Amino acid sequence: MRIAIDVMGGDHAPGAILDGAFGALKSLGADDELMLVGRGEVIQCAVEASGAHDPRIRIVDAPDEIGMDEQPVEAVRSKPHSSIVVMSELAHRRAEHGADVIISAGNTGACVCAAQMALRRLPGVHRPGIAVVLPTFGGPVVLCDVGANPDPRPPHLAQYGIMGEVYAREMLGIAEPRVALMNIGGEEGKGTGLIKATRDILKATPDLCYAGFVEGRSLFDHVADVVVTDGFVGNVVIKLAEGLASGLFRTIAREIAAIDPALAERFKPVQKRIYALHDYHEHGGAPLLGVNGVCIICHGSSEARTITNAILKSRHMVDNRVNQAIVNRLAQVGSGAGVG
Amino acid sequence: MRIAIDVMGGDHAPGAILDGAFGALKSLGADDELMLVGRGEVIQCAVEASGAHDPRIRIVDAPDEIGMDEQPVEAVRSKPHSSIVVMSELAHRRAEHGADVIISAGNTGACVCAAQMALRRLPGVHRPGIAVVLPTFGGPVVLCDVGANPDPRPPHLAQYGIMGEVYAREMLGIAEPRVALMNIGGEEGKGTGLIKATRDILKATPDLCYAGFVEGRSLFDHVADVVVTDGFVGNVVIKLAEGLASGLFRTIAREIAAIDPALAERFKPVQKRIYALHDYHEHGGAPLLGVNGVCIICHGSSEARTITNAILKSRHMVDNRVNQAIVNRLAQVGSGAGVG
Repeated sequence: MRIAIDVMGGDHAPGAILDGAFGALKSLGADDELMLVGRGEVIQCAVEASGAHDPRIRIVDAPDEIGMDEQPVEAVRSKPHSSIVVMSELAHRRAEHGADVIISAGNTGACVCAAQMALRRLPGVHRPGIAVVLPTFGGPVVLCDVGANPDPRPPHLAQYGIMGEVYAREMLGIAEPRVALMNIGGEEGKGTGLIKATRDILKATPDLCYAGFVEGRSLFDHVADVVVTDGFVGNVVIKLAEGLASGLFRTIAREIAAIDPALAERFKPVQKRIYALHDYHEHGGAPLLGVNGVCIICHGSSEARTITNAILKSRHMVDNRVNQAIVNRLAQVGSGAGVG
Repeated sequence: MRIAIDVMGGDHAPGAILDGAFGALKSLGADDELMLVGRGEVIQCAVEASGAHDPRIRIVDAPDEIGMDEQPVEAVRSKPHSSIVVMSELAHRRAEHGADVIISAGNTGACVCAAQMALRRLPGVHRPGIAVVLPTFGGPVVLCDVGANPDPRPPHLAQYGIMGEVYAREMLGIAEPRVALMNIGGEEGKGTGLIKATRDILKATPDLCYAGFVEGRSLFDHVADVVVTDGFVGNVVIKLAEGLASGLFRTIAREIAAIDPALAERFKPVQKRIYALHDYHEHGGAPLLGVNGVCIICHGSSEARTITNAILKSRHMVDNRVNQAIVNRLAQVGSGAGVG
């Protein structure tokens, strides 16, 4: 398997990205290949410095970069030699010794845009969506979409439910994933026209375990295995959860220290344990479901281990033939969620 | 001042609602009046049991109720004798010894619907919005809307910014409130058409301190005093924050207990202190801004003190002439946010 990595993307690039890539080598097969995409000389130096001389490493020079704050579509169009675009091109030329997988912690919008242009969509898919695995208090929850499609139509949302269902089954090993729809109330009458129309499609989807509406209050209570939402709400949700959790821990630590510094010391391992339980770095990035290939989008603040986990996760996605399962499932439900 | 309270609404009704109303009496003036709306005999018993024989209490019989899960518009239409509708009618007849203020912890949708029908809108207001004061780590943040208008147009959102600005100034004493717009990224290019059009109106609003986009990540970091969002996102946000915070505290308590039960005991006061700092009960409900009157919507799980605080807060809203300030401000900005 050939895995292309955007070495220049992310708050801690290129260092953390390269370390993460090197860290994955021991877990990869002899025939696997890591394509490190970015400034050739930077990568060359890092490879030499790390002493990671490995025949499975291939350096792909991309002299240009797309910044985290650049306007995605414009940036992708105007920067053909950026690491994100060059990486995506490798996936486009998969057949000619290109990449089976692309991974980036860079500009999410640019990555989604470049990946869609290069990979196109899987048969039957209306719009790709980013699926994040939320480590909730009761277990993992697949939340889709979290930013690829901020203004979706009902069939798009319904397909996020179906693709999320397949992902939960194939990647999380959940036999019958419960699929819920994010809404502002639990009652049937609640929600916008978009929500109600999506609910009707999901309810009519054969063999789908539709779990009804889920409110923000119970999202982290594991009342469903897959939660469907538009990219705007999904993006607000994951960022809010991240910000609120870290803010609460900061406040708790400060309050404890104010009362009893010794107590603060003893609280640290507790905090570490909880962080470990709900650590998104362990989930190694979020797949862009629906593209005809494997594209993993990592958190901008990805550490080396995040990238290592993303590489190993992408391997499972290929081994488990998740995309084939999505195509089969969409073909099966056809008309239902197929209504474009 | 005459304050009408829906005694039958809320998870802890009627007990907590009545106790909260009685609790407010000592802080109210001699000319003030508390109109307790609900099943007459129930209220009569409670008044006698509490020994709160006070000439300022008036019992208004409303034999019917609207359940928390009922479809709002239908319920309001079909239940003219429900406490929410009777309470709203009192506000409609403010001039004929009706109510200056209405307060309910019941079905939010029904309360919004009944209040809009009975009170109508303030001059120049497109759509009323519910404004919640979020107790964030850096200070209070006015979030508007959180559920009255889940599918708004740009001028509606822009007015939430302006009404929220007035509310922050008049009720929180913030001289120059910073008004931000909730979005999925901080960069100019990010967001839906709705967001971009709203940004343009806010930017063009005279004397408005527009603070740009705010992401979910920094909502609780007090980067703005007022945050504008649609009722769908706003509702998800407040419920998610509530659910995640309580879930985190449960997890922390469990983890500490597992490591050291004695430590758990010592953590309790810390938790209490943090709860006190971020306690929505203290803020006593959320005003429905934009209606021609004062309508305070309380959390379904309101306790007695929540209702007491809501009553006192509603008094300040009347005393501070918040509605007049909103009308003046909207007249001043006129054309900008006035574009319907």
